[in-house]
Order: sequence, then C-alpha cells, then structure tokens
Amino acid sequence: MARFILPDDKIPTAWFNIMPHLPEPVDPPLHPATREPVGPDDLSPLFPMALIGQEVSTDPWIDIPGEVLDILRLWRPTPLVRASRLEAALGTPARIYYKDESVSPAGSHKPNTAVPQAFYNSAEGTTRLTTETGAGQWGTALSFACTQFDIECKVYMVRASYNQKPYRRIMMEVWGSEVVPSPVDDPESPGSLGAAISDAVRDAASREDTHYSLGSVLNHVLLHQTVIGLEAKEQLGLAGEAKPDVVLGSCGGGSNLGGIAFPFVPDDSIRLVAAEPSSCPTLTEGKFDYDFGDVAGMTPLLPMYTLGHDFMPPSIHAGGLRYHGDSPIISKLVRDGRMEAVAYPQGKVFDAAVQFANTDGKLPAPETAHAIRAAIDEALAAKELGEEKVILFNYSGHGHLDLSAYDDYNNGRLIDA
Amino acid sequence: MARFILPDDKIPTAWFNIMPHLPEPVDPPLHPATREPVGPDDLSPLFPMALIGQEVSTDPWIDIPGEVLDILRLWRPTPLVRASRLEAALGTPARIYYKDESVSPAGSHKPNTAVPQAFYNSAEGTTRLTTETGAGQWGTALSFACTQFDIECKVYMVRASYNQKPYRRIMMEVWGSEVVPSPVDDPESPGSLGAAISDAVRDAASREDTHYSLGSVLNHVLLHQTVIGLEAKEQLGLAGEAKPDVVLGSCGGGSNLGGIAFPFVPDDSIRLVAAEPSSCPTLTEGKFDYDFGDVAGMTPLLPMYTLGHDFMPPSIHAGGLRYHGDSPIISKLVRDGRMEAVAYPQGKVFDAAVQFANTDGKLPAPETAHAIRAAIDEALAAKELGEEKVILFNYSGHGHLDLSAYDDYNNGRLIDA
Repeated sequence: MARFILPDDKIPTAWFNIMPHLPEPVDPPLHPATREPVGPDDLSPLFPMALIGQEVSTDPWIDIPGEVLDILRLWRPTPLVRASRLEAALGTPARIYYKDESVSPAGSHKPNTAVPQAFYNSAEGTTRLTTETGAGQWGTALSFACTQFDIECKVYMVRASYNQKPYRRIMMEVWGSEVVPSPVDDPESPGSLGAAISDAVRDAASREDTHYSLGSVLNHVLLHQTVIGLEAKEQLGLAGEAKPDVVLGSCGGGSNLGGIAFPFVPDDSIRLVAAEPSSCPTLTEGKFDYDFGDVAGMTPLLPMYTLGHDFMPPSIHAGGLRYHGDSPIISKLVRDGRMEAVAYPQGKVFDAAVQFANTDGKLPAPETAHAIRAAIDEALAAKELGEEKVILFNYSGHGHLDLSAYDDYNNGRLIDA
Repeated sequence: MARFILPDDKIPTAWFNIMPHLPEPVDPPLHPATREPVGPDDLSPLFPMALIGQEVSTDPWIDIPGEVLDILRLWRPTPLVRASRLEAALGTPARIYYKDESVSPAGSHKPNTAVPQAFYNSAEGTTRLTTETGAGQWGTALSFACTQFDIECKVYMVRASYNQKPYRRIMMEVWGSEVVPSPVDDPESPGSLGAAISDAVRDAASREDTHYSLGSVLNHVLLHQTVIGLEAKEQLGLAGEAKPDVVLGSCGGGSNLGGIAFPFVPDDSIRLVAAEPSSCPTLTEGKFDYDFGDVAGMTPLLPMYTLGHDFMPPSIHAGGLRYHGDSPIISKLVRDGRMEAVAYPQGKVFDAAVQFANTDGKLPAPETAHAIRAAIDEALAAKELGEEKVILFNYSGHGHLDLSAYDDYNNGRLIDA
C-alpha cells in the first residue's frame, strides 16, 4: 500500500479536450422540434455562453479559471493509491491503482464540474440554477459549488433516492439548496433521471434568472473531469509505472469514466473499460441512435447509446448509474471499438465493495463499486494468465450516504439484478 | 487555502509519551473493591500485557510496530490544511490550521488506536474483542481494525445513538462486527457510555477468548493518538510557522485532544484548550476525584474530573462527547492549569459546523464542531485585538453519518443545551 501525492502546485491548470484526438467529430446535437443541429442561441436559455463554447471547442487545452482553481484546491490534487492489500487478498501479479475522488467536499468526482459550472453561470449573471440528481452525488456537488458563488440552487431528486437517502437531501440543505422529489407531477412514480431532467429544464426555461446544470453526459462536463486522468498520469509516473494497461471507470452518464480515461485515449495500447449496471445496460444492450436526454423530450437529441428516453429503471440501488442514455463521446468511443463495456448485477458489485472495504478500508459508493468489480475481475484474469498488468480505476466516490444499500446486501434484501 | 502534505516516509514511527514531561506522575488507578493501586494482574483479564505496559510506561518514545504502521499507512500521514476561506469569512488576522483526521477508513482519528489495540490483542492470542460506542466513531474504528487482524468484534452501542444512527451500525456490520443496543438489560433506557462500558466489560470478563477495548480515557489510548500532534508539528514547519499559539480539540474522553496537544505540552508558551458540550461539562463543572469509568462500578477507579459515574446525559446529539469522566492525564493538565477548558451549547456548535461546511467544504462530525467553534472564537478574539495568532485544531472526524443532527438543526428541532 502506498499513496502517490502530487504537491499543490501540480494541480492541472488546463482541461484536456479529447475532440482533436477523435478520428472524426462527434455528430452534433439536434433541435428537438426541427431535428436541425442546434446553435448557441438554442442553448442560451439554459447554459452560459462559456459552457456552450466549451461544448463544441476543438482547442486541445482549455484554461481553468483562477477562481475555479482556488476552490478545486480545497481537495485537489487527489491521491493516487496502490491497493496493495487488495492485490494480496486476490493473490494477483497485477498492480492495482485507484484515483481517490472521494476526498472532495461532496464525496465524489462531481464537484470537478459543479464548480466551473457555477463559476461560469455566476460570471454571466445567473443567480439561480436548477438540476436533477439520481443517487444524490451530483446534487450534493452542485449545492456545494453554488454556495461558493452565492447562487440559489434547486434540486429535483429522483423520488426513489429521495425516499431511500434522506442524508443526501440533508447534506444539500446544509449547503443551502432546496430539494424536492421528482417527478413533481406524479407523487406515485419512483422517478428516473430522465424525468428529473424534464422537471429541472422546465423550471429553468421558465425563469429569466435561472439556468440549468447537468452533471454528466455533455461534452463540457466530461472536459471538466479530465483533471482526474491528468493527475493520475503524473502520479503513475511517481509510482514508477510507464503507463497503465487498462483504465476502468463506472459508467452512467460517463463523467467519471471520461474524466479518468480521456487523457489516455491517444495511446492505443491502453485498454479503456466502462462498467455499468445490468439493470440499466445502456452501452452493452442499448441502441446507438439520436435520442432525447429526458423523458418529456425537451432536450436536444443526442447521438448516443440509449435504452429509449422513456426507460424507467427498477428502483434498486446504484441509482446514479441508471440513466437511459450516455455521453455522446463515450458512446462514440464504444461504437468505434476504442472503449469496451461490461455490465454487472448488483450482487457481484456489492461483493466487490465489501471486499474492498475489508482490504483497503474504504467503503465505496455503489456506483463506484462497479469499477472495483471490473478491477478485481481484471486482476483475477491477470492472475490466471500470470501477467503483471497495471490496472487503474477511478474511485469516484464514498458510500457513507448509501449505507442503506449495504444494509440490504448484509441482510439478503438486495435485488440482484 | 493550502494543504501541507507529508510524504509517506514521514509517518511517525514512535509514539510520544507525555509521562516524562509531567511535573509529577499521574495518580494510579485503584482497584474497585480494595481501593489499592491496581497491578498488571488485575488488568490482564481485560487487556493484553503490551497495553498494560504502555499504560504505565515512562519511556519518552515507544516504537510503533511495523504491522501497525502498515495499516496506518492506508491513510497517514493525514493532511494539515490552512482554512483560508474560513479566515476570510471571519475577517481575522489569525491563521487557522486544521489537522484532517477525517480521512481515515472509519472517518475519524479513532483508528489510530484501534489498529494497535487490535494488533497487540491478536499478537497475544485474543480472538474476540468487546467494546462500547457512543456516537459510533469508536465502534466503527475498532470494527475496521478487527477485520484487519481477523478478530471477532462485538459492539455495545448507546441505545440513543443506535436508534438515531442506523448508518453507523451498518458500517460496523460491513466490517463484520455484531452490534447491539445498550444497556442490554433495560430496553427502555437511552443508555450512556458508562452503561455501555459495563456491558462490554462484563462480556469480556466472562470469556477466556475475549478482551475489552476502550477508545478513549486510558493513557495508552492517548499515547497512540500522538501521531496526530507529531505530524502536525512537522507540517506547521512546512507551512512556515515556528509554532502554534493555541492548540484546540473537542473533548469527551480526551483522545483526539490528547493526540494533537500532547506533543506541544513541553512548550509552555503554547496554550492548550479543551472544548466540551455544555450538556456534559466534565472539565468545566465536574469535580476532580477518583471515580469509576462505568455505571456498574466494575472498572478501576480513575483520578479524573467527573460528573459522577451514574451521570445520564440528555439524549441529544454529539453523543460521543457525553462521557461522565475524562482522561486522567487531560484532567491533571486542566487541574494544574496547563490546559484550559470551555463548554458550548449545541446551537453555537452547529452554527460553527455549518459555517465551516460553507467556507471550507467539509461537513464535520458534531463532536468535531466543538473544536471548530472554539477555533472560530479564538480567531474572532484575535480580530478584536488585531493579533496574528496561529490557531491549530484537530478536525477529528466527518459528519457524513451524523446528518440527522444537521436535519434537526436546519429545521429548528435541535435541543440547544
């Protein structure tokens, strides 16, 4: 076990833009009514111009504003840790490293984009943001970010999570947000991310002072997350590793995976793997097509793997990964064969989570445990073959606010889908 | 805002023993029946000989076993952070530093002693440990430590906390512990730490394979916590500070306070301050006397400040600090005038917690928030006087599993005692 820590002054000062590294551009989003490519004016009721610009930028690097860096420095650079005790328990010759994004104020990678989103909105005069949240990681992150810039924040929380996870709601409220269960117009429905996006977009579109903020899927969100992979690359160097053989992340909308994986895309010798839940198998069983980002069909159509925008996932845990669609960039990488995807049922995911908690002492978010499961399987495959593989995964968040799911697992109540 | 990080190889390899630095020895514990000083044989049914030896050692330094260091390295050295954003919000010329012990697997400083206690018990052949827990931090820590050494663990949890904090119980169960509410023989009672100690000691005394483990109060526990202050001293040097002017910690049984403060005791120019809850004002309103550590009068009599061993605190939050007694060493330092003590009601404590969450992004345990309150008050006093004071406090743990208390605070339900 060893931790590889970058000094404060090694925090990345520019985001890595994957666009120039793709063989051809990602297809553009289409207007929901006209089915023509959307322009900046179509998006300006919802997003600040700076983010609209980043959404389509082909600049290889985009500077991180100083006001954003000042806040990211509260927890960044995050540690890279070698999970030696897990390696020993598995008896694998593989070396397993994880990037620990759980050390942020909100307990996940999500503030990496929440902070710049709040900053750009504030800089362009927006005083109120709306958003949706599934498992709660994103809503918590945006609540934290908004309080840093004195922005009002309203969070539409998927009702199943709202009921299962009161601690998440409370944390958002400590940071001053208003939190309501979604869908707002159907108190019987357990909700879905797609439905909560409709609620949040509808609210933002109806008020001059309000913009909308999304925690995954969009290009600018994944861009902001690349600080993860950029730091990890430096830290693997400190650990004496030339490069990872495989980079893994859990995948719902794709932001933590994109964050750790994109800086490694240019090196074709490095495998990239998305780990998703069997109950919402967007990349492994979805169809690649244009689809809406939300249930109501209010968002632009995005080119992505999708289970259909009216997909309603079962009310099981790991809610944060239960999105019908996926990042267009991640979708493209998977379709092009540059990235692999695997799906796991909940039981195997929690087996991995508990094993990790017992060897390395950290109790992961259920979402994060998908990546741990994949890392363990890679390490066991390496053992089978006697290979000294270097495995890097993103420890995207802690599970301190998800303990009811562990209680279900401990007591045989987990729905193993 | 800046973080001062020690490299992995700067982890302390010996504990700092305060005993040789006291003007005269601490009075010995007395046998509960004979009122004669207890000897090793009296304690051996409950504790391993190594810990009994550390309890009375006058060696200035005590080596940390390699097996213990291997586990402490999962999270140590912990960061020292300058709370610049809090300073700015307060408009104070003081410089505020906190030692972040919340990054441990259990989320507090408690594993610093849980790990060596589990190790020494395992080394001497004990296969089962019992303990009590109040707010849950200690039970979580010992559960984590026991799983590292394949020791069975049973936790008697103060019933009020058991009911208020199911997430704490679940976390202990993830690490394989059995958790039961205490007192076991009175299901109507909200319980107290003193009563839970009786339950745990009774269990341990009745079985050959079982020892008892205590998370605070005793000399060896505070000894193990001195890694906190030793690291902080080095890190203040990295920050360019010659020394702190004042060192603060929350205080229940005294372990996190002792951990950060003891290495600073030899320098008389440094003020040391204990922050305790008004609802359990052991140091500020208790009497210095020999008293039992538990309700049933089964433990040795300890020379300490006490509210009486049958003191039953109100069922409010910050449960972890609600102990009728205190560490004999801390008690002696307070009685001798080397250490100050202040008491705060819950409302002022949560005001400080929420202010800190909003400036520095971390959501503290209610216990920890007592130290934050004291640090803020010191910083405001420095502002009043225009003094450039250096304030160091121990951020003993996160509040992720204590959010119901924040919910009460947010909704005006907090009992402000």
